[in-house]
Amino acid sequence: MVGPFGGITAATMVSAITQHPECLGSPVSLTVNFAAGITPGAYTLNLRAARTNRSTQHWVLDITQTQPDGSSATVLTGTAMTALPRDTWALNDSPMPQVPGPEGIAPVPTPEALVWLARYELRNVSGPLPAKWDGRVASDDHHTASQSQLWVRDQPARPLDYPAVTAMSDIFFPRVWLRRAHMVPAGTVSLTVYFHASAQQLAQASDDYVLAQARAQAFSNGFFDQTAQLWSHAGALLATSHQLVYYKE
Amino acid sequence: MVGPFGGITAATMVSAITQHPECLGSPVSLTVNFAAGITPGAYTLNLRAARTNRSTQHWVLDITQTQPDGSSATVLTGTAMTALPRDTWALNDSPMPQVPGPEGIAPVPTPEALVWLARYELRNVSGPLPAKWDGRVASDDHHTASQSQLWVRDQPARPLDYPAVTAMSDIFFPRVWLRRAHMVPAGTVSLTVYFHASAQQLAQASDDYVLAQARAQAFSNGFFDQTAQLWSHAGALLATSHQLVYYKE
Repeated sequence: MVGPFGGITAATMVSAITQHPECLGSPVSLTVNFAAGITPGAYTLNLRAARTNRSTQHWVLDITQTQPDGSSATVLTGTAMTALPRDTWALNDSPMPQVPGPEGIAPVPTPEALVWLARYELRNVSGPLPAKWDGRVASDDHHTASQSQLWVRDQPARPLDYPAVTAMSDIFFPRVWLRRAHMVPAGTVSLTVYFHASAQQLAQASDDYVLAQARAQAFSNGFFDQTAQLWSHAGALLATSHQLVYYKE
Repeated sequence: MVGPFGGITAATMVSAITQHPECLGSPVSLTVNFAAGITPGAYTLNLRAARTNRSTQHWVLDITQTQPDGSSATVLTGTAMTALPRDTWALNDSPMPQVPGPEGIAPVPTPEALVWLARYELRNVSGPLPAKWDGRVASDDHHTASQSQLWVRDQPARPLDYPAVTAMSDIFFPRVWLRRAHMVPAGTVSLTVYFHASAQQLAQASDDYVLAQARAQAFSNGFFDQTAQLWSHAGALLATSHQLVYYKE
């Protein structure tokens, strides 16, 4: 609602880190804070490794833009961590929900005007945009009332990588719209993504569909949170995410 | 396992922000990354407001410590957001689980040697430390196998504030110990907390018990995540949290 799709901005940060000549390993965590809407035109991405350990590395980043009056303003802040992959005990304690596969579900028509949305193929499993914007607060089942599940892949299809997973973690429309059947101004202010898949595991997922699931836990004082999970079609938990979203009223 | 209790370090960051003369409003989000163990002795906390909007403010912070060779090294990075409280539509979509109250549960004995732990009164509801460290991977119920619930308050009791809530969001022992009944080296590397309670709502919770709940979603490549919720005794969702934890093997 304010500025471009936050997911692509976050993905650009991940891309910058992984392309940095000093980068150690692969992304394991990312937090970006959207301090102001990024405007069309040039921006400066400041990125530095604040600490490099034996197997982990901590990154600090921000985006600044020159304002009409010539001054420079911060529009995004963030931190990230990369790590060398280690072969350890592993367990997926959030198995993929049992849902219909993508093949039998019609793709959501994406309006041409929303260019970023048209870059995705989306197939809704549950919790679509309300059919009626009647302001009716949804069911009393707190766990599912603000939850959406959908199959997603890039359009045109391309192999998964860390930037793609980052952007997909922000693919959901605002939970407050679903919960209230009421379209209020809303926008992500902080996004955290944890990457559970190694580069090799991402490569295995190839260009297949990803199951994306999100729900809110609390709406209060003009902000709600959203927890999200991304699974490969084969059921590997690729990433988990938590974000905080501003809403107006 | 490496350095002091991360919760108190994170709480110190929140305290620094709220005491800053330029601080606008109250904390709504915090992310801290533990880049290295903080060692006993002096440290420098660098804190600046990177962006101040009409009702929100974005903070960037780090901690540096002078090394034995005289150089300065970053041991913590982080970002935070504060906001003026706004009166909006609100809904708790994660009602407090129905659990026995704290009164009938005996406090966990806290060893004097763990000074930080002795500063808490803890009453376990579910998911305590394994009684036997027999390496048996727990039940197949993925939702509860890595979950703990406990009543917590400061010892001695004191009214809740943002630093207290921040520290409590990191009160849990490593999920990998619970899941595996096996004590491997582990430590938080990144912690994000979203504050859903206004200062007034925190004041209402006073010095009463808080119900703290945490579970892991995925363990892979040497890191697991932990999602957590904190409710007031009256059932208000005070904060939600997501953290990434290193484990050794």
